[in-house]
This record gives sequence, structure tokens and C-alpha cells, in this order.
Amino acid sequence: MNLPKQKVAIVGGTGYTGVELLRLLARHPQIEVCAITSRSEAGKAVSDIYPSLRGEYDLAFTEPTTDTLAQADLVFFATPNGVAMKQVPELLAAGIKVIDLAADFRIQDIDVWSRWYGMDHACAELVAQAVYGLPEVNKEAIKQASLVANPGCYPTAVQLGLLPLIEQGLIATDHIVADCKSGVSGAGRGAAVGSLMCEAGDSFKAYGVAGHRHLPEIKERLSVANDAPVGVTFVPHLTPMIRGIHATLYARLTNTQESLETIQVWFESRYIDHPFVDVMPLGSHPETRSVRGSNICRIALHKPQGEDTLVILSAIDNLVKGAAGQAIHNMNLMLGLEETAGLSIVPLAP
Amino acid sequence: MNLPKQKVAIVGGTGYTGVELLRLLARHPQIEVCAITSRSEAGKAVSDIYPSLRGEYDLAFTEPTTDTLAQADLVFFATPNGVAMKQVPELLAAGIKVIDLAADFRIQDIDVWSRWYGMDHACAELVAQAVYGLPEVNKEAIKQASLVANPGCYPTAVQLGLLPLIEQGLIATDHIVADCKSGVSGAGRGAAVGSLMCEAGDSFKAYGVAGHRHLPEIKERLSVANDAPVGVTFVPHLTPMIRGIHATLYARLTNTQESLETIQVWFESRYIDHPFVDVMPLGSHPETRSVRGSNICRIALHKPQGEDTLVILSAIDNLVKGAAGQAIHNMNLMLGLEETAGLSIVPLAP
Amino acid sequence: MNLPKQKVAIVGGTGYTGVELLRLLARHPQIEVCAITSRSEAGKAVSDIYPSLRGEYDLAFTEPTTDTLAQADLVFFATPNGVAMKQVPELLAAGIKVIDLAADFRIQDIDVWSRWYGMDHACAELVAQAVYGLPEVNKEAIKQASLVANPGCYPTAVQLGLLPLIEQGLIATDHIVADCKSGVSGAGRGAAVGSLMCEAGDSFKAYGVAGHRHLPEIKERLSVANDAPVGVTFVPHLTPMIRGIHATLYARLTNTQESLETIQVWFESRYIDHPFVDVMPLGSHPETRSVRGSNICRIALHKPQGEDTLVILSAIDNLVKGAAGQAIHNMNLMLGLEETAGLSIVPLAP
Amino acid sequence: MNLPKQKVAIVGGTGYTGVELLRLLARHPQIEVCAITSRSEAGKAVSDIYPSLRGEYDLAFTEPTTDTLAQADLVFFATPNGVAMKQVPELLAAGIKVIDLAADFRIQDIDVWSRWYGMDHACAELVAQAVYGLPEVNKEAIKQASLVANPGCYPTAVQLGLLPLIEQGLIATDHIVADCKSGVSGAGRGAAVGSLMCEAGDSFKAYGVAGHRHLPEIKERLSVANDAPVGVTFVPHLTPMIRGIHATLYARLTNTQESLETIQVWFESRYIDHPFVDVMPLGSHPETRSVRGSNICRIALHKPQGEDTLVILSAIDNLVKGAAGQAIHNMNLMLGLEETAGLSIVPLAP
Repeated sequence: MNLPKQKVAIVGGTGYTGVELLRLLARHPQIEVCAITSRSEAGKAVSDIYPSLRGEYDLAFTEPTTDTLAQADLVFFATPNGVAMKQVPELLAAGIKVIDLAADFRIQDIDVWSRWYGMDHACAELVAQAVYGLPEVNKEAIKQASLVANPGCYPTAVQLGLLPLIEQGLIATDHIVADCKSGVSGAGRGAAVGSLMCEAGDSFKAYGVAGHRHLPEIKERLSVANDAPVGVTFVPHLTPMIRGIHATLYARLTNTQESLETIQVWFESRYIDHPFVDVMPLGSHPETRSVRGSNICRIALHKPQGEDTLVILSAIDNLVKGAAGQAIHNMNLMLGLEETAGLSIVPLAP
Repeated sequence: MNLPKQKVAIVGGTGYTGVELLRLLARHPQIEVCAITSRSEAGKAVSDIYPSLRGEYDLAFTEPTTDTLAQADLVFFATPNGVAMKQVPELLAAGIKVIDLAADFRIQDIDVWSRWYGMDHACAELVAQAVYGLPEVNKEAIKQASLVANPGCYPTAVQLGLLPLIEQGLIATDHIVADCKSGVSGAGRGAAVGSLMCEAGDSFKAYGVAGHRHLPEIKERLSVANDAPVGVTFVPHLTPMIRGIHATLYARLTNTQESLETIQVWFESRYIDHPFVDVMPLGSHPETRSVRGSNICRIALHKPQGEDTLVILSAIDNLVKGAAGQAIHNMNLMLGLEETAGLSIVPLAP
Repeated sequence: MNLPKQKVAIVGGTGYTGVELLRLLARHPQIEVCAITSRSEAGKAVSDIYPSLRGEYDLAFTEPTTDTLAQADLVFFATPNGVAMKQVPELLAAGIKVIDLAADFRIQDIDVWSRWYGMDHACAELVAQAVYGLPEVNKEAIKQASLVANPGCYPTAVQLGLLPLIEQGLIATDHIVADCKSGVSGAGRGAAVGSLMCEAGDSFKAYGVAGHRHLPEIKERLSVANDAPVGVTFVPHLTPMIRGIHATLYARLTNTQESLETIQVWFESRYIDHPFVDVMPLGSHPETRSVRGSNICRIALHKPQGEDTLVILSAIDNLVKGAAGQAIHNMNLMLGLEETAGLSIVPLAP
Repeated sequence: MNLPKQKVAIVGGTGYTGVELLRLLARHPQIEVCAITSRSEAGKAVSDIYPSLRGEYDLAFTEPTTDTLAQADLVFFATPNGVAMKQVPELLAAGIKVIDLAADFRIQDIDVWSRWYGMDHACAELVAQAVYGLPEVNKEAIKQASLVANPGCYPTAVQLGLLPLIEQGLIATDHIVADCKSGVSGAGRGAAVGSLMCEAGDSFKAYGVAGHRHLPEIKERLSVANDAPVGVTFVPHLTPMIRGIHATLYARLTNTQESLETIQVWFESRYIDHPFVDVMPLGSHPETRSVRGSNICRIALHKPQGEDTLVILSAIDNLVKGAAGQAIHNMNLMLGLEETAGLSIVPLAP
């Protein structure tokens, strides 16, 4: 049974989320990439910029005109913050579905968004209509959505580790600690001194402790789940590796007698219908390499020394479950395809 | 059309070539792994040793008895040198095909083999019948073979870079230089001080300059292609990365007027029917990451300063084209399957 | 003025703390290394095992007999846990001072020690007499000590980040979070699969969440400072780098109105007489590479979003301030030398 | 005996060679850094840009005016190619000595220089007067020089490995192969995509095979030693590490009967008076980490399989012996100081 393939376009395809979309879509059985745009590389073949894709695509980068994008059923924006919001209204009006991998539609509170992203919103009226694309929360809504805000990488790892606890009221929600570590690809492919091999390699540091843009996203989404404000101290760190996010989450149990085994069962049942969340056996320590290149989030629970602080470990590949893979998961849902289509990749370890 | 899957077993599955076979075979449409053996880990689930394979296999490691292996159509030996040769005669007698990923059947000259590997050969009579499993040379013979010697990682990268030149008589074959660089996974998963992160990381060194076991393999195979002895200086180096081999090959042209463009055409036509060799455009510099996780060998040609020394760059993933991927390629040929089945993996970059 | 050099011996010199002692002592103006022992490498020249020390030492490794050690004024034990305690009584009786870089004398509560280290203590009576060698706390006692317990690497980074707060009663001490990240050298030079480049490289994970041996040390020492029990959740992580520990510490202020500027002043005055602690300006993010190879601990304070959780960042080189450098600092104090002698090393960055 | 310190200035201090000069000079007993300039960072404190130097310097970056530099006895140019040549005539005229760490004065043949560096020379008349600052060749001339051209990093490693052979006429000089591998710091601290952790990390590649600017330098200097033209194929590679160059050199013996032991003696005697060259025992494999942070070049000789190709391994730290350390060595010679002053650093391993 060979259905005609549906068409997608990628705006801003030269960054790491762009090439990761290309890597994954190259083997998607029901999707054809009809256009990939880049102002800076327009005219160059994809395989010249990305030799790892030689033989996979005949495409060249083009200018991101609406004409180019109009042939697509769905458009991915893999652009810097503030780009998608300028072009999305026109595309939606033309009946084209949109997934924004940047932050333009992630936060419902426009004032909060403007403050953290330092700009006015170009289409505030569309934000309320955008669906937050975390399939483990919003699967049905995503299926109906025209516009999906693909979650941030840190917020994905943090939410998946905390949601079952918050939804069940198992933890105090005023002083959660989210100590997160990211590989350097999270900083993108831009030529920045801080991302150089000789600056970020063989070293470790925290950054943005005073305030990182993923904090308001984390707080807003956890507050929705909690139906009340949630207090989180979020500290991101830069780790000398390429891919991967590891979130170490600390929360106090409301009932100090709650057994870890019971909580484990909550987690397992919470994610039983979600193919990309793997709740590991008690006592496990997920390594980021165990999800490298795949759309899986691995989670493990601990209650050290039997005390009342719960430690949740959550590991994803920031470019896949934290970006391009989750976007394709959302695309599958939006286009009526099998949820896991194109995403059945075995992690690359070692 | 759902044909019944053919069955394979893996002997010695706890090393990096073993887990890589499992990673690749997990998505092979026509193969079922019916057994994986390990004396040291017998009884443990595959996913306990390799969390990256959680959800992929229900298998546990078992003892490598012939009974266990007898249910397979084909057996892979991912064992140390000298193990396969003890069990292969029995398996072949039982009509089971065998691919040895170690060195037991790579070298036709038994004396040379014994000298370099420091042991007597347990089934010297089978060596002549073994086919050297470099599909770009022996595709038809492999299809007929019961016993295939999977090439070494360095020899694969070196031969693919030199074969078109030697076959066409384009270079002097007395003083070839093969300066090769390998990631640390080439040293295996054994607990050795030299492979520690703190020994091999952030540093570079040559090793085995006096003589490496892949040298006689390289010389024997190139001599077959040359129909005369070939002189090679082969220096392997340890590079602070996980996967990848990069061979930098130096050879003098016999006809100093030969243009690089002509040689490029020879390479392209030599490999036109071989799906896993990518001859890049003139002026290219293949990166090992551009083949990471894939079975591709990328090759680029240079003739610096217009002089008479040709420089050939050849890059593979040592665990895939240099080991498990090439073994699956051979398996496909031996079992009458599509040559590329299970091997259509887009390289993971970044 | 050329005073005769004092003599030191190193027991167990083949691990990373042993070679680090040698690196640092090679330029110490008042110290001569008179012996270095290793059962496994006895007879081999130091420079054969450690080419980085070629030309620095004429020494060969010897057996760790008491005769060999008796010529020293002070003996360092860079041995596994449980070794020093067997030989220390004899050395002290002979008037030789001792610094144990392992854990035998770090914990005053013998029962706690036995439970965490899984053995009986061979000289429990000496534990009370041992001085905990954190110069920023015990400088005067160290000067008088015959036996110093060199602190663990994690406990050093954690204590230096928390002590000013606990001593001043500024934080709640029941639920401190210490999220710590270490380079792989912390696991030592032993040939263990988990420390291989291909296992620990390009990946990140927590380990020992259920309980790590540095936890009781941290709790005991902080409780001493607090004059009351302290509750700490301590999670160590393995980072794909060679050297460095980064502790990210979370504590709630007892007085939520306490300004960060005031706390900064407390830190600066607390460490004003301690040459190896650098309290960075507010807003800083210490990188581990900024202390690479040096005995410095860099600390920075944050109070994200103006809320009541304080975040303290503390970075050291685990092999220097976390081991060999701190041991030499202690040695200087014990032998009446200048506190910083031999430790004025500019960090190696990049 | 406390002589007044001599003063040096550094032009272009924000790159890796600049900070490396600062790291090394911070402990030089007879030198004071009186100025460090940077147009882009003028006004900022050195320790703000380089936290690893906190507490070492009170200096701020200033504009590179001649007034600023006039107070110095010697000026280092750690600037891009083409900068020094514009300011050097004025400084020399003012009696200030100059060491250029860039390429402006490395090549005597002005036409060759202009072709490779793509610009006209601003003071061609001074090139002949500049001394090539490889102390193992030109020590006496350097002592007398006012203007020293500090050698390139690759040329340093290559020349030290080949000079004894060429000077003794032991090898054929028409077809030498220099296969060289560099850490990423060789590309400098500029924000370039190719130097990003996610581009250069965990991967290996050749670059500039068609022609690298260090080739004419290597050829000119070896030809001087040979008193005749030398033919070299030079291929540089980018290695996923921070510091270090490893040159693997291949040359054919003119007398195939020459024993390796004899050649070893030549090397040892050639370098006996040169404190920074370590000729290792036969059979050694120098690791780049064994010279990390130090000014040492370690060399080892091999003659694989007893054939007529000699393999020479040469390892340096590209930022020290390949740049800042060699510059300080030259400075010591030019200012009449002890040759090794400030350079007695034990390499940092692991």
C-alpha cells in the first residue's frame, strides 16, 4: 500500500535542529521534504553543507518565500526566536500547518514571553491557539492543531521527570530544584566563542543561573499541571559533550512515608501509552548516550537514604526528543500518521 | 509479502562489535537474532548490559554451546582472535554459515598468520576455503561462501583507498605509506588502562609502529590485487574520539603526468556498483563524523602542489564498515538478501 | 639561603593522586621525594610509567616496606581505602608524619566509617587523633598534627561552598542539595570498564545516588561546623572530562530578606586569609578549566530570581585541591613551610 | 640577588597564544608584563577575559599604540598575520626588540610569502634581518637578534624530527612525508564554525591538503639545512583535542643498512645541548599529553619491519613549544637570561 507522501518544508535549515530534521526525515516512509530554506546558504546543495547527508537529498537551500513554502502540507520553523511569528499567520491562513521549534508560541503569558525574549510578539492573538507540543500531555490536542509550539529541550526533560509527581500531588511544589546539564549542541551551530572546542571542551560550568529563558516555560507548564503556581530553581550547565541533556530533579515528598515502589508504579502507568518514555527499573542511572540519536526519554527514580527528598533522573537527546524528534512526533500526530513513524531509531552507543 | 525471518546467532556479544551487531540487526527486516552468547555475562538480559537496547531484545546472554548455535542459519563470531577457529569446523559441518569478525581466517598464509597472532591455527585446512569479506572485491564469492573472514578495520579503510590505483597500475607499489588514525573503540571494551578516558582522552599518539597485526593483512590483500608484492609502511594512531578511522594514504604516481581528474573518474567507475563507497568531489576532506554509525566509506583524492605524490583520504566508522556493518553486508550477500538490507542508516552528525 | 630539603615518601604511587604528587613535588623548593612505592610496578623507573615526568626523577618504584619509608620526614598514602590504617601506627611510632589521601581517617564516627567502607578499622584509636586536613577550617591543628586525613574531593568542593553559610547560620540545614559533577580521573587509574573513553566519553550520568561514600564525610564535617546535624542530598555525576569537580549547591535562606551582597561579603571575609579560595564577583560562573592543574577553589554566589533559594557554585581540580595539592598544602603546614610552597601554579586554560 | 625585572609587552593578547604568554610569564622570575593590548577588549581587565589568570595580573587591555609599547624592552606580537609588519619598523627604530609569533618574518623568500599569505609585505627589507627563532638551529643568532620570527607550530614539530637526518645526509630529501595532527587550539580563539565543539569534537579529518601556509616555511627551512631543495608532502589534520601536535614523519634512508641504533645516537648528540628536546628511547611512542603545558618536544625513532623507511614521531604542545613557550625561549636568549627561565613546567598528565 503506497500512499502518496505528504510534503513538509523546513525554514532555517542550516542549524543543528535543521540538519537533525533532515537526518530523521530522510528515512520517514510517508514524508517528502519539498523545500529547505536558508537565507545565508541559498543556492547551495544540502549535501555540500552536510556531507553526512550525501546521497540522501537532491535539495538545495532556497530563500524562505511563502511561495516556496506553499507547496508543503506542514512547515517546520528551525529558526531563531522571533522569526516564525512573522510568517506563521500567512501560512496558517493558507491552510498550511506549522510547527515552531523555537520559542515564539511556547508561553501563553505574552507579557512574560516579551520580558524574557526581549521583543514584542508579532501575532499575540495566535498564541492562545497554539498547542504546546509535548505529546505526553497534549496528544489529542496536537492531533487537532494547526500550530504547535515544540517544547524547549530543558523543559522537555524536566517536565517528563516531574509530571507524574505533580499530577498526583506527591511532592511539595514550592521549592523544586532542577539541576540540568546539556551538551554543547544546545547552543546551536552559531559561531560563538563560548561554543568552541577549546572553550567548552574538557571543562564544566553552570550558566544563566540568574535566569534562563526555559525557566518561565517550565514554570508555566508545571503550573498548568499543578493547577497552581510552582516554584522551581533551575540551573543549566554546559557539559563537554555534543548531544544530551540530563536533568537531576529534587523534590520533597508531601507524604514522607510514600514508598518508592509505589511512585515507580505511578510513573510506569503514567507513561504506558507513550512510546518514547522509558521508566527504568529502580536503582538505574540513565546515561545520555543510551538515548543518543533517538527520541527516547529515560527516567529513573531514587529516594536516597530513605529520606523525604525524591531524586528523579531524566535523560534525552536534546536534538531529538528535545527538538527535531519531538517535532516529527508532533508532525505525525498532526498529519494522522503512525505516532512512531520515522522515529524508530536505535540509540548509538558507544 | 512477509517471508519468514532468517535466524542468526552472535558468539561473544558483550564487546563493541557484538553490541553493534545488535544495534544494526534490531532494525533488519529479514533477520531475527535467535541467540547471543557470552561466558562472562550468561544469564543476564541484553538490555541490562546495554541500556541503549532496552525494549529492542528479549534475549539474555547464554553459554556459547553448539546446541544454542545450531538453530541459526548463520553465526557471527565477535570474539577475540583464536576463538572462532575452534568452533567453526563443527558449525560448517552442520550446514551453518559463519562470519568471523576476528582475524582467524583473514590471512591465507598460515605461517604469516601464526607468526603475527602468536598461535597455531586450529583449522588451517579451512582457511583456503574462507572468503575474504570485502564486498567491493569479492561480492560474487561471498554470495557462495559458507565461511567469510570479515576484514580488519584498518585494512578496510586502506584497501578501499588504494585498490583502484593498484588495479590500474597507477602507483608505485613498493613504498606506499598508510598513516591511519582510529577512535578508541577500536581497542574494544576490555578494561585496559590504555583505553581509559584519562589516558586516551585529550591526547594523540602512534602505537604499534614496529608492527601491527593489520599490516600482514593489508600487504597480502594488496598483493593479490597487484599480482605482485606490495610494500607498505603502516602506522596506526590512537585518536581521542570514540568511533572512526581515517586513513591518509601516500603513493607516487608511476606516470607523473596522470591528471587527478582522470584518477577521480577511475575511482568513481570502480565503485559505481558498490553502494557503501562514496567517492567525494575533488578537493574534499572526509570527516569521520560524516560516516558515524553508518556503513559508508568516504574517499577523497588529492595531488598536493601538482607533484607526483597522490594523497588519498579514506574515512569509515570502525565499528560499522570496519566491523559489524560489513559483517551484515556479508550476511546479506550470503543469505541472498538485498545487499543494503538493514544498513540504510543516515550518519549521526553532529 | 639553602636549607636542606625535607624528605617525603609516597606509598602507592602509580595512581593519579600519586603521579599528581610527583608532578607538584618536582618543583617544590624544599622537598625531596626519597621513595615512591608500588607493589605492582616495583623496579620500574617512574619515568617509564609516566613519560610526562621524564627528566624529573631518577626514582624507581620500590616495595612499600617500613625501612624504605623510615628515611622520610613525612609519608603520603596514595593508596586504596584500608591500606594506610595498617601501616600508619608503625610510622607514627617511628616519629614519621603521615598524610592519608584515602578515607581511612576522614570520619570520626568509626561505626559510620565501617558501614560505608565495608571493613573494620585497623587502628580506631588513632582516628580521634587524626586531623581533618581542610586547611580552611583546621589550619592551626594541622600545623601540630602527626596524622592528617586528606579530605575527599567532593567534600572539599561542597564544604568550601557551604561553610560560611552554615557558620553564620544563614541557611536552613535540614535539606541542602549538593549536585556534584566530576571528571573521570576521580575514578582513578584502575582498569574499569566504566572509566573507558568509550563508556564515559561524550555522555553524562549520575551514579551512586542511593549512597556515595563521600556523603557521611560531608554530613559529619558540616555537622561539626553547624554544631548540629545537617541534612544533605548528595548526587554525584560523571562528566566526560578528565579533571575537575563542579558542585552546585542549593540551600534556603533562613532570613529570606538577606541580600546577596551581604552574603558575598561574608564569603570574602571568611576566606581572606586562605590563599587557595577565590570568591568570584557576584554573577560569575566558575569553569572547572579555570582551576585546571592548580590548587584553587573558585566560588560564586547566586540568588536566582530574587527568591529564597541560594545557589553556590564551587569548582576545583579534583586531583589538586581535591587530592594531591591539598595534601601538599597540609604537608607545608605540618613541616613548617610556607603555606603556598610548591603550589603557585597558574591554571592551564585552554 | 634581585635584578630589576625586564619589561615586555604583548600586542594582541586575547587569542590563545596571548593568554599562553601571560600564563607562562606570570611565573617568570625576571620579567614583568608592562602592557597587553587588544583593540576589541581595550579597557577590560585581563582576569575578566581569562578567569584562569585571576589574581595573577592587575593589567587591563589597552590600545596597541606605540607609546604604550615604548616602555617595553621587548614586544611580542600575538596578532594575525600581517599586523606585526606594520608596526615593527617603528619599534626596532626605537631600540625595542620584537618577537613575532605570526608569520610575517618566517619566510625569507618574499615572493613565496606574498603568494601564500595573499598580501604584499610592508617591510620586506627587514625580513632578511629577522632571525628564524628555532633555538635548536639558531641559538647564537637569536642572542644577537633584534627581530625574531617565531616558527609555526607544525614547522617546529617537523623540523625537530627531521633536522638531524638532513644535516647528516641520512635520508632521501625529495619525497619526505609529514603527516601532522593538531589539536583545535591551533585554529585560534576566533569564533569559527569549524572550531566548534560540535563540529570538531569526536571526529577527525584532514584539511588544507592542497596547500597549507606552513608548507613553504617547512620547505624553506629544511632546504637551508639541506643546502638544496627538499621535497615534502605535508598533510595537516584536525584532532578532537585541545592542545598538542603530533608529527609522523616518513623518509627513506639513503643507506638502507644504516642501523636505527646509530641514528638514535645522532639524534641524542644533536640535541644534547638543547634542554627542550627529549629524544626518547627506541621503541617509544610519545603522547601529546606527555608534553601538555610544557615547552618540550619529545621525539622517537622507528624503522618498521627493518625496511628502509624511517618513521620519526615528534610531539609538542602547539601553544607552548609551537608558540608562546618557544617565544619566551627566544626572549630569554635575546635578553641575556637563562635559557630555561620561566619554562620549567612539568607537563600536566593526565
